[in-house]
Amino acid sequence: MSNAFETIRQFDKMLQNLDGWIGKAATHAEARKFDVDTLVQARLAPDQYNLARQVQAGCDSAKFAAAYLTGKAAPPHPDTETTIPELRARIAACRGFLDSLSEADFAGAEDRRVSPPWLHGKWLTASDYLRETAVPNFYFHVVTAYSILRHNGVDVGKMDFIGSMTLQG
Amino acid sequence: MSNAFETIRQFDKMLQNLDGWIGKAATHAEARKFDVDTLVQARLAPDQYNLARQVQAGCDSAKFAAAYLTGKAAPPHPDTETTIPELRARIAACRGFLDSLSEADFAGAEDRRVSPPWLHGKWLTASDYLRETAVPNFYFHVVTAYSILRHNGVDVGKMDFIGSMTLQG
Repeated sequence: MSNAFETIRQFDKMLQNLDGWIGKAATHAEARKFDVDTLVQARLAPDQYNLARQVQAGCDSAKFAAAYLTGKAAPPHPDTETTIPELRARIAACRGFLDSLSEADFAGAEDRRVSPPWLHGKWLTASDYLRETAVPNFYFHVVTAYSILRHNGVDVGKMDFIGSMTLQG
Repeated sequence: MSNAFETIRQFDKMLQNLDGWIGKAATHAEARKFDVDTLVQARLAPDQYNLARQVQAGCDSAKFAAAYLTGKAAPPHPDTETTIPELRARIAACRGFLDSLSEADFAGAEDRRVSPPWLHGKWLTASDYLRETAVPNFYFHVVTAYSILRHNGVDVGKMDFIGSMTLQG
């Protein structure tokens, strides 16, 4: 299932994009003379995750997808980040794991059953898991992080979101 | 590329979920005694699309992906919606097109070049287009619509977002 490898590479690129939006937030805070770390606690609704938890959950969604589909252990990343530089380091740590995986590591991924703990013993095929769970969940957290930044005046737009594309012609 | 058909089915399910969140918004408005149509103009930042445009763009992202990958003409859906019932009708119209497509319609999708007008003659392979453009763009608008509703007090949570999964065991 080369699709699994390519999906993880896409997650990696989106995490790179996310790091870029956070970089723009730092620039914005400097210009407006506020402490960028106040954004770590920002959220769009009182009972929704704040920026820190959105970043952590987005990273974990990518990390666990990569681990489930390769059979490799996910490195532990405790959710201890309280500053923007720490969130950027979390993204870098997650990307370090994703970048350590080669296409060959995903050989046989299509035959795997994926059974995250929160499914309590039930499972999905690898492709159903990617399409129905990992991809929507990953984008859920990454887009919400983007929206929190945008809502707080950070100058990010759609092309910052999409990032690079494999254009031809 | 059976993956293309399955991705379109996933988009269809997410649009069904989106319709459900909007249904919850109507219930919320009734309980709080406000006109639900005020939410059509709601947005998270002054220079970002409001709810109506997020729903329209999410629908179009799914519709054009399906059209590009099958070679069929996308039905025209002018962006005229100004009420919640009209937005739900727009979702239904988009889903009607998606539901009209069978797996056989996607035969040969992997050999297609996808060249949306905004790429000005450049193109992507069908699988690059889906992974790098259609999927992120679709989730961008659908998650933002979700966040607009959540930000305005609508009682939606993660499982409303994910919807049904093909669980086994």
